[in-house]
Amino acid sequence: MSLPADMEQDEVAAREDADSPLVYRIERPVYNETSIRSQLLSRKENSTTFRERLANHFRCSSARAKAVALNFLPILTWLPSYPVKQYLFSDVVSGLSTGVVQLPQGLAYAMLAAVPPVYGLYSSFYPVLLYTFFGTSRHISVGTFAVISLMIGGVAVREAPDTMFLVSPANASNMSAVVDREARDARRVQVAVMLATLVGIIQFVFGLLRFGFVAIYLTEPLVRGFTTAAAVHVFISQLKYLLGVKTLRFSGPLSVIYSAKAVFSNITSTNVVTLILGLACIIFLYFVKDMNERFKKKLPIPIPGEIIIVIVSTGVSYGLSLSADHMVDVVGKIPTGLLPPAVPEFSMLPNLITDSFAIAIVGFSMNISLAKIFALKHGYSVDGNQELIALGLCNFISSFFQTFAVTCSMSRSLVQESTGGKTQIAGLLASLVVLLVVVAIGFVFQPLPQTALAAIIMVNLLGMFKQFRDIPNLWRTTKIELVIWLVAFSASVLLGLDFGLLVAIVFAILTVIYRTQSSKSAVLGSVPGTGLYCDVDEYEEAVEYEGIKIFHCNSSIYFANSDLYVNSLKEKTGVNPEHLQAAQKARKKREKANDNHNAPLKICVKEEHRNGPTGDSRTESNTEEVVYLKSPSTVHSIILDWTPVSFVDSVGAKAIKQVIKQYAAVDVQVVIAACSRVVLADLDTLQFFTGVMTTDMVFPTVHDAVLHCTNPRPAAAPANEPT
Amino acid sequence: MSLPADMEQDEVAAREDADSPLVYRIERPVYNETSIRSQLLSRKENSTTFRERLANHFRCSSARAKAVALNFLPILTWLPSYPVKQYLFSDVVSGLSTGVVQLPQGLAYAMLAAVPPVYGLYSSFYPVLLYTFFGTSRHISVGTFAVISLMIGGVAVREAPDTMFLVSPANASNMSAVVDREARDARRVQVAVMLATLVGIIQFVFGLLRFGFVAIYLTEPLVRGFTTAAAVHVFISQLKYLLGVKTLRFSGPLSVIYSAKAVFSNITSTNVVTLILGLACIIFLYFVKDMNERFKKKLPIPIPGEIIIVIVSTGVSYGLSLSADHMVDVVGKIPTGLLPPAVPEFSMLPNLITDSFAIAIVGFSMNISLAKIFALKHGYSVDGNQELIALGLCNFISSFFQTFAVTCSMSRSLVQESTGGKTQIAGLLASLVVLLVVVAIGFVFQPLPQTALAAIIMVNLLGMFKQFRDIPNLWRTTKIELVIWLVAFSASVLLGLDFGLLVAIVFAILTVIYRTQSSKSAVLGSVPGTGLYCDVDEYEEAVEYEGIKIFHCNSSIYFANSDLYVNSLKEKTGVNPEHLQAAQKARKKREKANDNHNAPLKICVKEEHRNGPTGDSRTESNTEEVVYLKSPSTVHSIILDWTPVSFVDSVGAKAIKQVIKQYAAVDVQVVIAACSRVVLADLDTLQFFTGVMTTDMVFPTVHDAVLHCTNPRPAAAPANEPT
Repeated sequence: MSLPADMEQDEVAAREDADSPLVYRIERPVYNETSIRSQLLSRKENSTTFRERLANHFRCSSARAKAVALNFLPILTWLPSYPVKQYLFSDVVSGLSTGVVQLPQGLAYAMLAAVPPVYGLYSSFYPVLLYTFFGTSRHISVGTFAVISLMIGGVAVREAPDTMFLVSPANASNMSAVVDREARDARRVQVAVMLATLVGIIQFVFGLLRFGFVAIYLTEPLVRGFTTAAAVHVFISQLKYLLGVKTLRFSGPLSVIYSAKAVFSNITSTNVVTLILGLACIIFLYFVKDMNERFKKKLPIPIPGEIIIVIVSTGVSYGLSLSADHMVDVVGKIPTGLLPPAVPEFSMLPNLITDSFAIAIVGFSMNISLAKIFALKHGYSVDGNQELIALGLCNFISSFFQTFAVTCSMSRSLVQESTGGKTQIAGLLASLVVLLVVVAIGFVFQPLPQTALAAIIMVNLLGMFKQFRDIPNLWRTTKIELVIWLVAFSASVLLGLDFGLLVAIVFAILTVIYRTQSSKSAVLGSVPGTGLYCDVDEYEEAVEYEGIKIFHCNSSIYFANSDLYVNSLKEKTGVNPEHLQAAQKARKKREKANDNHNAPLKICVKEEHRNGPTGDSRTESNTEEVVYLKSPSTVHSIILDWTPVSFVDSVGAKAIKQVIKQYAAVDVQVVIAACSRVVLADLDTLQFFTGVMTTDMVFPTVHDAVLHCTNPRPAAAPANEPT
Repeated sequence: MSLPADMEQDEVAAREDADSPLVYRIERPVYNETSIRSQLLSRKENSTTFRERLANHFRCSSARAKAVALNFLPILTWLPSYPVKQYLFSDVVSGLSTGVVQLPQGLAYAMLAAVPPVYGLYSSFYPVLLYTFFGTSRHISVGTFAVISLMIGGVAVREAPDTMFLVSPANASNMSAVVDREARDARRVQVAVMLATLVGIIQFVFGLLRFGFVAIYLTEPLVRGFTTAAAVHVFISQLKYLLGVKTLRFSGPLSVIYSAKAVFSNITSTNVVTLILGLACIIFLYFVKDMNERFKKKLPIPIPGEIIIVIVSTGVSYGLSLSADHMVDVVGKIPTGLLPPAVPEFSMLPNLITDSFAIAIVGFSMNISLAKIFALKHGYSVDGNQELIALGLCNFISSFFQTFAVTCSMSRSLVQESTGGKTQIAGLLASLVVLLVVVAIGFVFQPLPQTALAAIIMVNLLGMFKQFRDIPNLWRTTKIELVIWLVAFSASVLLGLDFGLLVAIVFAILTVIYRTQSSKSAVLGSVPGTGLYCDVDEYEEAVEYEGIKIFHCNSSIYFANSDLYVNSLKEKTGVNPEHLQAAQKARKKREKANDNHNAPLKICVKEEHRNGPTGDSRTESNTEEVVYLKSPSTVHSIILDWTPVSFVDSVGAKAIKQVIKQYAAVDVQVVIAACSRVVLADLDTLQFFTGVMTTDMVFPTVHDAVLHCTNPRPAAAPANEPT
């Protein structure tokens, strides 16, 4: 770890002359891979490393056991050192505030999940409690979430549609009268609970398998496009509650269009009282949100608009008996107390398994992205795999107590963090607030109008709708990501959230393939005296060496682009070995015919016009003449700049070998420059350096290769010497 | 385009001293991106290029029209200059030999396609004739092909199963007696013909859209695994003909298992005469193939084993009346003459469209891969898009004359090339041979036993089965491609060829993603005096500079790996800004508590043990103490070597920006080195260089960055100076 001698000199030189710029000075022999391997570099012994690694593996096993246990139950690491004096007050304030938000959101999102409201309360209690023990994020608020709830609702409606529970199927004109709501809701709860079990199992197993990395495929534009689409779905699904219109609930592709159509075709049956109440709630909530935002710093805790709406509208509904007198739909029966644990309906597994994967992935990715944001802000780190395990356990265990799948919600987590929450204790207290309501005063909320819940849901969508602003931003910065956003959005709106997510992920992955393929290739020239090389078409200062073409292509060389690489090599350098060979043949024939003796071989290169038509070999027999008559150019060497090549597969290696041989047949030397040591190791396993391929044709930098090629080559005919 | 002055000196120096090694010598100021942009490089005016391009676009329009026409009908370019004296004799010999192979293969592959044999003859005539006009490859022999025929047969059986044509459905014990074969075969022909139409349309449209590049996704291991699987399918499907056992034909997933089971459960009903005849044919054909291979050079044309089998076994069958006396299944009715053109059944389109895509892609990829092999061997080039158009037209037009889909076949193309075929004229003559048989002597082949055709098909599979040898080869060279081979093979065997192909393509694409993600990262050290940098863990000569960590990761930085990049940066360099910040906070607190005055800031870096647990932030509050007490290391600069980075997306740019800010907060300077100009342009559009990010922190080479970082930085506290 000491400074190499000559570098120290440089540094000293630079310091002596403090005002003048630093000097970059290198003087050494030109290296190629052969000389590097024989003289310069020697690999370190690998056996020791392996033995060390093995030793490490066994040595740590006791400490590791403890680490695994602590990892699995993070509460064991933070609770013992919980600074009660510093943190407890903040956590209590934050917990109570969050609990007060959990409550109305639980009721509202149960509507989205197509289950009776009380199940939303269960889902706001058990998983939140469990997360305290297993979670690693200190600020996120686990619980019901709009997108997940909507996905659950879609599945529940598909598996238990209204039409399955018609009491008198013959007379289906008045829908609400004939559907056996109790049986239907019981079935939907079964579906939602079984989904939660499966989601939990999937997340838990993924966590154990260290699959936390799957979240990385959900790139930001994808997630934002997807959640915006979810907001559209949720908005459309709530319209009917806001208007008090009775329609069926749709699921599957194009359901958003069917739903909107159904609502608007029944718009004449709007219940005016419901609508007025709903609009009043929306306006009030929007106003409160705005105030909270504006006076963020002055308010000790945000105004709990949602719980005010719930209490006031329940009071109004009860006082004016809106349900009985004005036909306003209300929440209805809320049983008091908790349900005993029960085993979910595993018989539904085959129908629900694909949906579970979608919900599990969306749930986890919401969780981890929010957790990371807060971790970054407060300077701690979260463990993706433990988050998966935590979320999985929350969903799995809770599902035995009749909850549906949960994850963290953006709006609630912001409340928890902004009210001063320091640790998972805040979440624990929030869950206890919900528990209190469930076991003591749940029945109070029975007259709560559904339109008030719809208002709460809609106002909470605002943040997601604001994501439409991404479109102009992305347009200005990166078009590919805009396309990902738009594909994720439109696929999710039109095909439904599950298929839409799949399409979006596949599309995002394809863009990476596209990027690795749609490579830009260029011929490089030297910037005199610097050892730097850049595109001759783009920079004025770059000059080419006579007789040498330096080809650069910013991609790896593998099956999907080896053809493109070779073609653009031939096109960009203007040296096409097929044409050269044809020209050689024609010349030989002509020479034989003319004077019947073998003249010494001359190299004859066709300089193609760079913008002209290329690869048009069918007209070859006609152009052979022309090629021969053209004045021969003197390209004797092609340097492949492999700086950006990060891997080469067997197809790529074969293609390169082929092209080097083709050029060798027409006396053009092809060398490889700036190949990374990882790629060199790849090439060794691919047995690339066999036969005519040698490590002599690999150089550590482009400049080494240029110096080698400008030097007279013993193999070349002296007539071709450029200078 | 002249040699830069100082380079000329180098060259002269090198030449003067011919025996000594070339010298690499550079002396220049240290550059960063700011100085490069302001002093060194200036972009060329783009407007002229655009104007030029526009001018080019319009100037060429007349010549281009002719080129397009010639492109579309390649025969116009090669026929006028056809050298009759040189080529014609070879073409005639080759054409007749190929025709003699087309004939039995046509009959045999019709069996695979589940249509009466005469349709195989039609398919060996029309498309072959048409390819002469539209094709660009001079050596491939278009016509019936086992894999395609099997795929067609699978669809035909699915769309027109035996059970659809039961005459007396009540009594289904004796299968062959109750199926209305004529109606069934007519329906299957309709399906096969409609498939050919669709395949033709798809290929033609893909060709017009310049989609020839799709073939690149079919990497070699994938195609070889897939064709090996196809050989397994074909082999199993022919067993029943070889044994003379009567079973249903299966299609769809696991069909290969059902078929094998059906044959072996009925194996007691084997017709011994059929089996003996079939085995005799197989042995004879294998012997002939072997002789042809062994005496390749001595034989003027290969022995036409297949036509001999057809003629002899027809004679034997006729003479011994095998069909009537021994219940041997024979080809049966072969109508003489051609059918009038008819419009295909477009009503079947919805059921066939997905199958057509699979067949179109497989057909084209077979065609282009063979065409490329021959083009390379004989020094001409083929145009992928024109091949798609040619194949599309062959399939589309021919389908109106009741053919099924075709492509080129490996075995037949080898016959055409090895017998001296020079141009498409050979194919033309081959088609005329088939025509002669169809219009004149087709009825002769009516007593031909099916077992002989099965023998021909099976022996032709040998080449494909030899591909099993890939497995040990790939095991030795590249494991990823072995996995692609195995996935393609097993998916295609088990799921059927269409689904198997889809699975294999998706898998192959995912391996690319995996490769771009499973990047190797390393800390680099300098090889003294060379300006070269390599992995300190791997090479003994690489030494690190004190206080500087050079981080190298061989991948681009985008959504799917930006997290991995940042994590491995923190882990490999052992400098974790979160720990540092925590340590700083703890120290500040302690300083405040102890002497209550602000001591000057000191940098305090925690050197993590490289193999130790990382990111374990939950224990942070416990370790803060420890961190503070450790002796501070002196890492003041981190250099990100971006040599292998070929693109950066917005997520990646954000992550890098974030990490640079994090490090800046703990007084560690992060600079970027060896960033390509394309990536720099990307970063500019992503508005990366705003706020604290400046082009001052980007250096053209790692060495420039090192020189910059070893120089005293005015911003840093003098106490941290390493020397």
